[in-house]
Amino acid sequence: MNDKIQQFLASQNPETPCLVVDVDRVVDHYASLRQNLPGAEIFYAMKANPAPEIIRALMDEGASFDVASIYEIRQLMALEKGVHERISFGNTIKKEGDIAEAFAHGIRLFAFDSIEELQKLSRAAPGSKVYCRLLMTNAGAQWPTSRKFGCDVEMARDLLIKAQKLGLDPYGVSFHVGSQQTDVRQWDIALGEVHQLFVELEQAGVRLSMLNLGGGMPIRYREDVVDEVESCAAIRHALEHHFGDHNLRIWVEPGRSIVGDAGVIETEVVLISKKSADDERRWVYLDIGKFGGLPETMGECIRYSIETDHDDGFKGPVVIAGPTCDEVDILYDQAGYLLPLDLKIGDRVRILATGAYTATYSSVGFNGFPPLKAYYI
Amino acid sequence: MNDKIQQFLASQNPETPCLVVDVDRVVDHYASLRQNLPGAEIFYAMKANPAPEIIRALMDEGASFDVASIYEIRQLMALEKGVHERISFGNTIKKEGDIAEAFAHGIRLFAFDSIEELQKLSRAAPGSKVYCRLLMTNAGAQWPTSRKFGCDVEMARDLLIKAQKLGLDPYGVSFHVGSQQTDVRQWDIALGEVHQLFVELEQAGVRLSMLNLGGGMPIRYREDVVDEVESCAAIRHALEHHFGDHNLRIWVEPGRSIVGDAGVIETEVVLISKKSADDERRWVYLDIGKFGGLPETMGECIRYSIETDHDDGFKGPVVIAGPTCDEVDILYDQAGYLLPLDLKIGDRVRILATGAYTATYSSVGFNGFPPLKAYYI
Repeated sequence: MNDKIQQFLASQNPETPCLVVDVDRVVDHYASLRQNLPGAEIFYAMKANPAPEIIRALMDEGASFDVASIYEIRQLMALEKGVHERISFGNTIKKEGDIAEAFAHGIRLFAFDSIEELQKLSRAAPGSKVYCRLLMTNAGAQWPTSRKFGCDVEMARDLLIKAQKLGLDPYGVSFHVGSQQTDVRQWDIALGEVHQLFVELEQAGVRLSMLNLGGGMPIRYREDVVDEVESCAAIRHALEHHFGDHNLRIWVEPGRSIVGDAGVIETEVVLISKKSADDERRWVYLDIGKFGGLPETMGECIRYSIETDHDDGFKGPVVIAGPTCDEVDILYDQAGYLLPLDLKIGDRVRILATGAYTATYSSVGFNGFPPLKAYYI
Repeated sequence: MNDKIQQFLASQNPETPCLVVDVDRVVDHYASLRQNLPGAEIFYAMKANPAPEIIRALMDEGASFDVASIYEIRQLMALEKGVHERISFGNTIKKEGDIAEAFAHGIRLFAFDSIEELQKLSRAAPGSKVYCRLLMTNAGAQWPTSRKFGCDVEMARDLLIKAQKLGLDPYGVSFHVGSQQTDVRQWDIALGEVHQLFVELEQAGVRLSMLNLGGGMPIRYREDVVDEVESCAAIRHALEHHFGDHNLRIWVEPGRSIVGDAGVIETEVVLISKKSADDERRWVYLDIGKFGGLPETMGECIRYSIETDHDDGFKGPVVIAGPTCDEVDILYDQAGYLLPLDLKIGDRVRILATGAYTATYSSVGFNGFPPLKAYYI
C-alpha cells in the first residue's frame, strides 16, 4: 500500500469504513498518461470519482472533463468559470432540458448514439460539435460496456450525415473498448472499423475532426494486468496502422486508470463464523459491503486485493460479505479468496485500488448505515 | 394505481424521478396482518423503508421494530422514548460496540447465528434474550435469503445450550423462508424442522419461549402471487400442525409486505432508441435506474409493474435501462417487458409497488444524480 495513505491511517486512525485517496497519485497518473499518449486530450471521466479535491487538482493540471449528467456540469461550473470550454457531455442519454442548460453554460461538445438524441441536440444545442458513440463488442473487458451505449457503424454513418443537415457540426466518433480492457488487440480491431467509417463519411462529404478513444485502460486489482505503457503503445500503434499521418484530435476519457489505485478502503472485520460444524469455509463479514461503496463486486466482476496485518501467515478459503441484512450483500463467494487463519474479529483490513466507483456509488442509508466517508490527502 | 397517489401526482406534478408513498396504506397492511395472524407480535423490518412518517404511523399502531444497525436504533430512540422495549436487534452481524450501545439504550432482544456473536452478546449485553437464526433452504423465494444468515440446526441447538451457560437467556429461534416467498408449503417444511429443534432443546433442559417466523410474505409485482390471507392461513396451519396448542410468543418481521405496494415511483422517459436499423427491440431509458433506487432489479429478480398513459394501445418488446453511464444500469433485458408503441420521450411512466427497498438504497450521487426524492402522503 501507498506510504502516504499508510501514514494517514496509522496517525489518524479514522473510524471504519472509510476511503482514503492520495491526490498526488491521481495527478501522477494524469501526468503519466499525458506522457504515454502525447498529443491526446484527456477528458477525465468524473463519474469515477467527482470529489472536489480531485477535480481541482486535475483542473490545475489542465485536464478536460467528460461528464455524465447536468449535476456534474453544475459542480464543475461552480468550481471554475471558463471550464465549460473543457467539458464534453458524454452521456448519450440526456433530457432535452439538461442539454439546453449545458448549452446555456457554453458547452458545445455532446455525445449521441440515436436519431432521437440528435434531434434533441439540434433543438437545444444548435451548431454544437457532436460525436457519435459506436457499439463495440468489448471482448476482454472485465466490466462490460458492450450493449447499453452506442449504435452500429451503419447507423453511425447515417446519423453523422444527418447531423450536418440538422445544423449540427459532425465532429467525430467515440467508442469504448470496455472498462478494464485487458486485451490490447481490441484497440486495433476497433480502430480498423472506425477508420472504415471515416473513409465512408468522407466519401459522403462529411469530414470528421475528432476520434474519441474512450476509457477502458485496466488497473491492477487482484491480478496483474497489461500496464499503461503497453496499452498506450498498442493504441499508438493501432492509430498509426489505421490512420497513418492523420491530423485528427485524439481524445481519451480515463476514469478508473486515473483514480482507481490512488484509493484504499479501510474496513473492520465485524464477524468471522461458520454456518455448521463441518463448514469448510469461514464467513468473514466486513463493515463495508455492496451497498456501502462496493457495487462493482456485483457478479464478482471487480476483484479487489485485500490486505491484512497477518498476510505472512497461513491462509484459508473464505466467503466475504458486507454488514447489511441483505443476502445479495455478499462480496466474494466464487472468486476463490483466501484470508489469513489468524484474522480476528475487530481486525482492520484494507481493500486496495478502491479510488474509483466507490464513494458516490454508496447508498444513502441502506439498513441505516451512512454513506462511505472519504478523505482526500 | 392507488387513488391518493394518483391525485398527488396529478395535482403536484413533482419533478421526476420521485417516490410517493401512501402512509394510510402502510397502516392498512399492518392492520390486515394483525387480523390474519392473530396473537403474533409484528416487528416491522424498518430497513424496508425507514422514513420517519412510516415509523411514526406504525409506532402509533403499536408495532415493534426489527432493526439492522445501531443507526436504525438511534433513529427510533430519537423518535420516542420507551421504544427500546419494542426493538429487536435482528442483524446477526454486529460490532461489539454497537451491541453495548443498544444494551445501554435498554434493548434486550438480540439475534445471533454463531458462537462468536454469542460471545460478544455475553460480554456486551449480559442477561439479554437471544434468539438463534436458522439457515433454511428458501426454495420458492424470488429474492434469496438462503446463505448469508443463519446456522444449521445442529449448530443452533449447541449454541442455544451454550447461551444459557454464557449468562444469556436462550429465548427462541428465527428463520426466514426467503423474501417474496411464493410457495406456501415452505412454511410447513420449515416449522417441521424447527419443532424438532424445540424438542431436542427441551430434552437438554433449554425451554424456548419464542418463535420468530421472519418475513418473506410476497407482494404482487408483475405477476399475481399467493395473497396474505392464504400465506397466513398456511402459517397458522403449519404452526398448529407442528406445535399444536403451544403457548409460544410468535413473532413476524414483515417489511416488503407492509410498505411495498404503498409506494409508486414516477419517472420520465429520457430516450427511446434503437442500436441499429434492424434492431427488433426499442431501448427505453428512464430517469431512474439501478443506482437511483432500483437495485432490486439486479439479476432482474424483482420485476416491477410498469404503468404508462398508453397502456390500451399496442405494445412491443423493449430493453429498459437507467440514465447513468454504466453498462450494468440496465433494469430489464431478459424479463420480456413490453411497452406501448405510442410511448414517447418525455412521457411519464409509473413503477408500481416500489415502497420497499428503494429510497434508502439509492446512491449518494453516482454520475452526479441526486438520491431519490420521496413524498410520504
